[in-house]
Amino acid sequence: MSTISRRQMIAGVGGVIVGGAVATALPAMAAPSNFAKTAEWIPHKVDPTVGERFGYDGYYHKGYGCCYGAFYAIVGQMAEQHGAPYKDFPFHMMEVGKSGISNWATICGALLGAASAFSLFYGRKERKAMVDELFRWYEQTAFPIYKPTTDIVIDKEIPTSVSNSVLCHVSVSRWSYSSGIPAKSKVRSERCGRLTADVAKKAIEILNAKIDGKFEGLYGKQESVKYCDTCHGNGKESPIAKGKQDCTPCHSGSEATENKFKDHP
Amino acid sequence: MSTISRRQMIAGVGGVIVGGAVATALPAMAAPSNFAKTAEWIPHKVDPTVGERFGYDGYYHKGYGCCYGAFYAIVGQMAEQHGAPYKDFPFHMMEVGKSGISNWATICGALLGAASAFSLFYGRKERKAMVDELFRWYEQTAFPIYKPTTDIVIDKEIPTSVSNSVLCHVSVSRWSYSSGIPAKSKVRSERCGRLTADVAKKAIEILNAKIDGKFEGLYGKQESVKYCDTCHGNGKESPIAKGKQDCTPCHSGSEATENKFKDHP
Repeated sequence: MSTISRRQMIAGVGGVIVGGAVATALPAMAAPSNFAKTAEWIPHKVDPTVGERFGYDGYYHKGYGCCYGAFYAIVGQMAEQHGAPYKDFPFHMMEVGKSGISNWATICGALLGAASAFSLFYGRKERKAMVDELFRWYEQTAFPIYKPTTDIVIDKEIPTSVSNSVLCHVSVSRWSYSSGIPAKSKVRSERCGRLTADVAKKAIEILNAKIDGKFEGLYGKQESVKYCDTCHGNGKESPIAKGKQDCTPCHSGSEATENKFKDHP
Repeated sequence: MSTISRRQMIAGVGGVIVGGAVATALPAMAAPSNFAKTAEWIPHKVDPTVGERFGYDGYYHKGYGCCYGAFYAIVGQMAEQHGAPYKDFPFHMMEVGKSGISNWATICGALLGAASAFSLFYGRKERKAMVDELFRWYEQTAFPIYKPTTDIVIDKEIPTSVSNSVLCHVSVSRWSYSSGIPAKSKVRSERCGRLTADVAKKAIEILNAKIDGKFEGLYGKQESVKYCDTCHGNGKESPIAKGKQDCTPCHSGSEATENKFKDHP
């Protein structure tokens, strides 16, 4: 390929990629993107009880985990009922959130799956209150709630705990600490499978209410966030705080976080 | 609709959704899902320098932010060069990760966008080392590195900082603390736009190496994770620790986290 057409120039990559290999001999061009438009996605109401079960089953499906389960409970229901464009979504991608993203234990994957589903249908301003409601409910709820009655993978009573956090690390480690059950165990997986059902159900209730024009957020700003924002919020003395997570799990001076790395007894 | 066909039973939702409204009079069925199969997605090499600029421009495109920018830098390049199935991905969904998911400041959205792109092409075992490399590099790197030379949104020298964390809250707040620039400001946004370029470029280098069969992770497990895992890892005395994040930002007993909520001076 000896000439670079205008179309290739505009595409931005035709000139520097040759036969799949990066041709470093040619100067790389930071060409403008056209930022391909995607079709508008229309939300449909789905069933929260079906979604709860899809969440649980989806968690175990091919080991895809919590993010896939929660997302499939919403968008997969639409796909199974309404076909395209829902059915053409590459659902396998949602495994990304498993164990808080490749076991990094950042965001709880079930929450990421649900928020991603919201994001297909609502822009950030519309979505904000929906995500706030789901995440604040999650911080304050004792999980798991769901008890499968058929095809139960681990047929045991599962202890519950409140995480005070939307992070997988805090959610799982706190549960393991309080239950005495290892973070890497089948019972802990079952706990997360049931939690996926819980998050899927709650997210669907929020989505259905939103579609009906009846969504109202019930959870207000956390006390810790209000307190910290008095100095660290936007426009205050030291406006450095980013985010909406409950501050206490990391900034409470609790035994769980104090001096663990430097001076652990 | 007075009868429920077998097909509707199998579809699992036909019997309980009537005309878009949830018919609560009918008992909800937790019917089995077919977990729709999705086509296999094949990765293509893309240009890291073009990706860097796509990341920066994508960050500002419609205010979609970091996650969209990093994802578009990878999958959008494939779309602009190779068409379907890449071009049919609902890219707008990736706004989900902006500000660490609807301003909750959990995972850095640029990392989520890059990990999501990896996840389109590689299952979790293949993907693990790729994500580990990207995330550990991020924890230890002073951002931003990228300096746009044309169409610069905020044409200033941007201070840098090392986050030691993959979380948006820690990454942004630490940068704001060290730079003295508010977390909610145009300069901080510019910092995150350039950081998106950095993450996009690094992720593309990892992806291209993986495609070539030459990917090797350079970053080993963090010292803090090694230390904490001696008691809290799998099979140890108190096996409660979930995750791979550097432990020190929250468990170091540092001034930043100690006693802030309860006993802040």
